[in-house]
Amino acid sequence: MDGELEVIRRITARVAPRGGVSVGIGDDAAVLDDGTVLALDMVVDGVHVRRSTHSPADIGHTALAVNISDVAAMGAAPVAAMVGLGLPPDIAADDVDAMYRAMEDLSRDHAMSIVGGDVSASPVLSLSVAIIGRAPQGIRPVLRSGARPGDVLVVTGPLGASAAGLICLDDPDAGGDERDALIAAHLRPQPQAAHGRHLAEAGATAMIDVSDGLLLDADRVGRASGLTAVIDLDAVPRVRGVDDVARAAGVDPALLACTGGEDYHLLAALPPEAGREPHLQVVGHIQAGTPGVRAMRAGRDVTPTRLGWEHHARGSASAEPPPQG
Amino acid sequence: MDGELEVIRRITARVAPRGGVSVGIGDDAAVLDDGTVLALDMVVDGVHVRRSTHSPADIGHTALAVNISDVAAMGAAPVAAMVGLGLPPDIAADDVDAMYRAMEDLSRDHAMSIVGGDVSASPVLSLSVAIIGRAPQGIRPVLRSGARPGDVLVVTGPLGASAAGLICLDDPDAGGDERDALIAAHLRPQPQAAHGRHLAEAGATAMIDVSDGLLLDADRVGRASGLTAVIDLDAVPRVRGVDDVARAAGVDPALLACTGGEDYHLLAALPPEAGREPHLQVVGHIQAGTPGVRAMRAGRDVTPTRLGWEHHARGSASAEPPPQG
Repeated sequence: MDGELEVIRRITARVAPRGGVSVGIGDDAAVLDDGTVLALDMVVDGVHVRRSTHSPADIGHTALAVNISDVAAMGAAPVAAMVGLGLPPDIAADDVDAMYRAMEDLSRDHAMSIVGGDVSASPVLSLSVAIIGRAPQGIRPVLRSGARPGDVLVVTGPLGASAAGLICLDDPDAGGDERDALIAAHLRPQPQAAHGRHLAEAGATAMIDVSDGLLLDADRVGRASGLTAVIDLDAVPRVRGVDDVARAAGVDPALLACTGGEDYHLLAALPPEAGREPHLQVVGHIQAGTPGVRAMRAGRDVTPTRLGWEHHARGSASAEPPPQG
Repeated sequence: MDGELEVIRRITARVAPRGGVSVGIGDDAAVLDDGTVLALDMVVDGVHVRRSTHSPADIGHTALAVNISDVAAMGAAPVAAMVGLGLPPDIAADDVDAMYRAMEDLSRDHAMSIVGGDVSASPVLSLSVAIIGRAPQGIRPVLRSGARPGDVLVVTGPLGASAAGLICLDDPDAGGDERDALIAAHLRPQPQAAHGRHLAEAGATAMIDVSDGLLLDADRVGRASGLTAVIDLDAVPRVRGVDDVARAAGVDPALLACTGGEDYHLLAALPPEAGREPHLQVVGHIQAGTPGVRAMRAGRDVTPTRLGWEHHARGSASAEPPPQG
C-alpha cells in the first residue's frame, strides 16, 4: 500500500477533535483540556526491533521507553501505561515475563504504573503501548509549534550512540572499548522525563524527542512553528566512540549523530534569556524563514541525503528535503 | 506458548500500581485517582474479526466500539482514543480510509475524539485502541467487585444477536427475515455508553460489558465480588430471530444467548430498591456463596460445557466450571 506518511495524512484529514481536546494528532502526544497528555507508539519485531538482536527484556524496555519519551517531550510526567501485546506462537511464557519485568523496572524508575492492556495471538511479536501523563502543576504541555525567532535550540545530551550501536550489532569488530555501551544505548534507550519537565519549567517554547534523527525532528519543530530551525552540525555533541564507529563504517560522524535517530534525548527551543542547566548543549537556533530545518556546517548550508528515519512515521513527519535558506 | 489466561496471570503478578492509580489490571478499565478510566483492547484479523466477512469499516467500527464498551461498563463517558494500526502489505489506502471513517462516525456519535496513534507495517491487520473516559461529575467508576447480596442482575437489552449473526455469516440459508439484522449486530456492535452512565447514576454496585458471554461475564462479577451471581437462563431476553437460528443449528437458544458473547450490552448489579429504567431486564441476582456464576433453569442448576468465549482473555477471566451452589 502507500507509504505510512500518506496513511497518516489521510487519517489526520479524516478525524476531528471534539470537546475536551486541546491538541489532537500531530505532536509527540495529544493534550486534553485539563493538561493530560496521551500517546501511543508501537514496537513491532522486524520493523522497530529485531528478536535476533533484541532480548525480550530489551523489547519490553524499548516499547515503554519510547512512550515515556513522548510524554517527556511535552514536559509532562508519565502516570500510567497500557500494553497491547501481540504474541506469536513461538514465544515462551518466560519471554513474556522478561518483557514485563523490564517494563515494570522502567515504570518504577519513573514512578508510573502499567494498569492494563490486552493480549492476542499474532503472527509477529508486537507491543502497542498507550501512555497517559500530566504536566507539572501550573505548567502547560510544550508543543512542537511554539518556537519563536531568536530561540536557541538545545539537546539534553550527546547523540549518535544508538545509530553507532546498531552498526556494532551488525559488525562484530566495530566499537572498540565503547562497543558495549553503544550497543546498550541502542537496545535500552533512556527517556529524558526529568529533563523534559525542567525544560518546560524553564520556559521551553517548543520541544520534541529525538526519535527519528535530529535533523528530521528539528524539521518537524520548524514546520510546526512556521519558522526555520537552524542546526549547526558541528555543534551537536556526540557520544564517545561514535566517531570511530562512523569513520570505520565510512560515514560522516556528525551526519550519523544528526540523522541516526533513536537517541531519545530531547530537542527544545528556549528563549535566549532562559536559564540553561549545564547538561544542555546549544545545537542551533530558530529564525524566520522557510518552515523546516536548515543544516549548516562552518557557516555553509549542507543538504544531507536524508534527515532521519521515516519508518516510525509519527505525527507530522515529512520526507521533503530541507529548505535552502 | 501457554494460554492467554496464563499470560495475563503472570503479567498481573508482575506489575504494581503506584501513585495516582485507584484500580490497575483486572477490571474492564483501569481507574486513576481523579476518576479517569483507561482501557486498551486489540482487534486482530483472524482472531477477533475476519477480513473475509468484516469490511474495513466493520473492523474499524468494532475496534473502537469494544473500547467504548469498556468505558461504558465503568459508568463513564469516552473522551479520546488512540489507534495503533498494524497494516499488512495487501491493504489499500482506501481500506484505511474506510476504517477511520467508521471510527470517526462512531466517535461523533459518542462526542469523543480520535487524538493520535501510530502506524506500522505488520504481517496481519491489527488495531490496538486505547481509550480514556471520565465518569459523570460526582459519580465513581463502577467496578466488577462491588456487588452485594440481594442485588438484582440486569442487562441493558436482549442478547444472542451477535452469536446468531456469526452463524448466519457461515450459513447462507440461516436467519430468515432477521438475517440481515443479526449479521449487522455481529459486524457492528453498539456500545451502551448512555445506559452505562444511567446505571452508574442509579447506584449500580458492579458492572461489566457482555463481551465474552453473559455467563462468563457474570462469573467475573461473582468472583471479583466474592459472591455468587445467579443467572436464570430463561429470564435472559433474546433478540428476535436468535431462537430460529439456534434451533436450525442444533443449539439451545438460551445457551446461545448466554454464552455467545460480543453483544456488548451491559450486565449490572443493582440494589433491589434502585429505580430501573424500562429497558432493563432482570436476569438474576447476587447471593452469598461460592464466588462465580450459578446458571439455573426452572429452579434447577445447569452446567453449560462452556461459559463463553475465552479468546479475548481480558481481565480476570476464568475457564473453570461454575460453582455448584
